[in-house]
Amino acid sequence: MIIDNYSNINQIIAENSYSSVFLLLDTNTDNHCLDLFIKKSGITDFKKVVVKDGEESKSIDTCEYVWEYLNSNNGDRKSLLINIGGGVVTDLGGFIASTYLRGIDFINVPTTVLCMVDAAFGGKTGINFKSIKNQIGVINKPKGVLIDIDYLETLSKEEYINGFAEIYKHSLITDNVELQFKNLIKFDFREDINEIIHKYSSIKNKVVELDLYESNHRKVLNLGHTIGHAVESYSIISKNMNKLKHGEAIAIGLITELYISHKIHGFDHNEIISIKEELFRHFNKVKFKDIDQKEILKIMSYDKKNYDNAVKYVLLKSIGNPVIDQEVDNELFFKAFEFYND
Amino acid sequence: MIIDNYSNINQIIAENSYSSVFLLLDTNTDNHCLDLFIKKSGITDFKKVVVKDGEESKSIDTCEYVWEYLNSNNGDRKSLLINIGGGVVTDLGGFIASTYLRGIDFINVPTTVLCMVDAAFGGKTGINFKSIKNQIGVINKPKGVLIDIDYLETLSKEEYINGFAEIYKHSLITDNVELQFKNLIKFDFREDINEIIHKYSSIKNKVVELDLYESNHRKVLNLGHTIGHAVESYSIISKNMNKLKHGEAIAIGLITELYISHKIHGFDHNEIISIKEELFRHFNKVKFKDIDQKEILKIMSYDKKNYDNAVKYVLLKSIGNPVIDQEVDNELFFKAFEFYND
Repeated sequence: MIIDNYSNINQIIAENSYSSVFLLLDTNTDNHCLDLFIKKSGITDFKKVVVKDGEESKSIDTCEYVWEYLNSNNGDRKSLLINIGGGVVTDLGGFIASTYLRGIDFINVPTTVLCMVDAAFGGKTGINFKSIKNQIGVINKPKGVLIDIDYLETLSKEEYINGFAEIYKHSLITDNVELQFKNLIKFDFREDINEIIHKYSSIKNKVVELDLYESNHRKVLNLGHTIGHAVESYSIISKNMNKLKHGEAIAIGLITELYISHKIHGFDHNEIISIKEELFRHFNKVKFKDIDQKEILKIMSYDKKNYDNAVKYVLLKSIGNPVIDQEVDNELFFKAFEFYND
Repeated sequence: MIIDNYSNINQIIAENSYSSVFLLLDTNTDNHCLDLFIKKSGITDFKKVVVKDGEESKSIDTCEYVWEYLNSNNGDRKSLLINIGGGVVTDLGGFIASTYLRGIDFINVPTTVLCMVDAAFGGKTGINFKSIKNQIGVINKPKGVLIDIDYLETLSKEEYINGFAEIYKHSLITDNVELQFKNLIKFDFREDINEIIHKYSSIKNKVVELDLYESNHRKVLNLGHTIGHAVESYSIISKNMNKLKHGEAIAIGLITELYISHKIHGFDHNEIISIKEELFRHFNKVKFKDIDQKEILKIMSYDKKNYDNAVKYVLLKSIGNPVIDQEVDNELFFKAFEFYND
C-alpha cells in the first residue's frame, strides 16, 4: 500500500486505465507542494480542485463543492482522485471519493508528518458535522499512499512537530521493543525523519490490517484520543482557549490517559513523568480550568468511539500492553487533569 | 440475508446487543406500516425519525436532518437503523447508516413490490445530487432484509405495479428457464405475489453475491436502466412531461434497449413485440418528442454507469444471454424511441 517512488504511482495509473485524474489540494499544498508533485511524478494530464486550507474544509459544503467539480469536469466511475495534503485533505478527499458514484479510487499523497504516520493510512475517511470531528465518514482504503519526505521541507516547525504525538503514541502501544518509547527518543527528529516515518507508520499499518473496521484490536490506536479528541473539539468551539492542533490535543490526551492507566492498571509512574517531560519538550502546556474540564467531559459523551452510552478508554498496563474498552470514573478524569496541570 | 419472520429480526437485535434501535420512515410508511411493524415485531423500545415521502427526500439536507436526529438521541456506533419503506427510504437510510460514525448497522424492511425485489437488496445506497439520481452513495450491504407482503396491502395499484418492471427485467436476464419471461407471465400478479417476490429477488441476490462492487457481472442488472434512468431523471426536471415512476421509466428503458439489442445482436423481434405488449398492459405509453429524446441523451452522459466518457449499455442476445459494456450509435438510440413511440 505504501508507494515509495513516483514510477509506482504512474504504474498504478497506467494499469487501471483511469478515464481522468483529479488532484485535490488545499490552498497551502497548491502553493507549496503541487509543483514538486508534478515535477517528480511527471503527471501533467490532470484537473485540479483546490479547497481552503484548515479544518473548516472538512464539511458537507466542501464535499458538495468538490462533487460538483467532478460532475462538471466529466468525472466518472473510472476517475482517480489524488489527495495531496495533510489529514484534512486526505480525510476529506477519501470521503468524497468513497461516496462519489458509490466510490471511485483514490491515492493519498501526505504532505505533513502527521498525515504520513497516521491519517493517510488506515482507510478512515470523514468530515466534521455539527462541530463533532469525523462524525460522518466511511472506512475505505486508498489505492495507495505515496510517501515522500521532500514535502516536509516547507512545513512550519509547529506543523512538523504536530505529527509527533502520534509517533509517541505508536511507540507506547507497540510490542516491538525496538520501536518503543525509550528507543524512539534516541532518534534525531530532523535527521532521521525518513526512517522514523517508515518505521512508525508500519505500526499503524499492521494494526489496521488485523482489524480494518475497528471491531476490536484497532481500538488500541485510540490511546490518547478519548480525551484528546474531545480537547481538540473543545478548543475549536470554546472562547476560553486557543484552537489546538491535533498533535497538541493528543499530547494532552496521552498524558491524562497515562495517568488514568497508572491509577487503574498500575502503569509505571516514573515512565509517565519521562513521557510527560518529553511531550512538553515539543508541545506547550495548556491551562485547563474546572469549567473547561467539565465541557470536555460533555463532548466526550458524543465521541464516536463510545457506545452503550459510556465513554470507553484505551489504557496501558505497561508500554506495549494496551487494554481497550475501559470505563473511567469522572472523578479520575478530573484527577488526570490535575496531574496534567501540575 | 433475507429475514423471513419477525423472530429472526429480534434475534439479530439480541445477538448484536445494539445500544439503541432507530426506525427511519417516511410520512407514508409512518401512517400505513409502522403499526403493523410494531404489532408483528413486538419491538417497542425504539426512536423513530420520519422524513417526507418522495424522491426529494434522497438529499443531503435530509441526511443532515437524520444524522442530527441520531446525534441528539444518543445515536452511537452500536445503534441500529431499521429502514421501513420503499426504495427512497432504504437507499437514503442505507447511506445515512453507512456514513454515520463511519458506519452503523442497518436492516431494510421494504414496503413496496419494487423495493422487495430490487432496492432493499444489493447494498447500493445513495442520494440524488444536482438532479442526478444516486450520484452520491456507497455500496454497503444491510444486516438483513425483512420480507413481509402484508405491507403491500395499503399500496395503490400504481405503486404496486411500479415494481413489476424490475421483475420483468429479472426474467429477461436470468438463465434459469423456469423463471424466464414466458413462465413469469403465467403467474397471477396478485395471488402469487409472495412466490414472485421470493423467486425474482433471488435472481438479483445471486448476481450481487458474485459481484458486489459491480466490476463486471453485476452490470447485467442495468438492463433497461441506461435509458430508463435518464428518462426518469428527465421526467423530474422537464416541463414537457409528468414525473414518471421508476417502473414506468424502466419499462421504457427495457423496450428501447431490447430494440437496440435486436438491431445489434439479433434479439428476436417477435419476442420484443410480446414483451412490449405485456409491459403496456401495466404501464401507460408516454409520448417522446425529438427534443425530449435529445435531452435524455444528454442526461445519459452524466449517468454513473458510463465511463471513458462513453455511454455503455447492457444488451441481450437472447433471453438469459446478456452482454455488458456495449456502445450504441446515437442514430440507433433515436430509432429505438421511434420503435417505442410506434
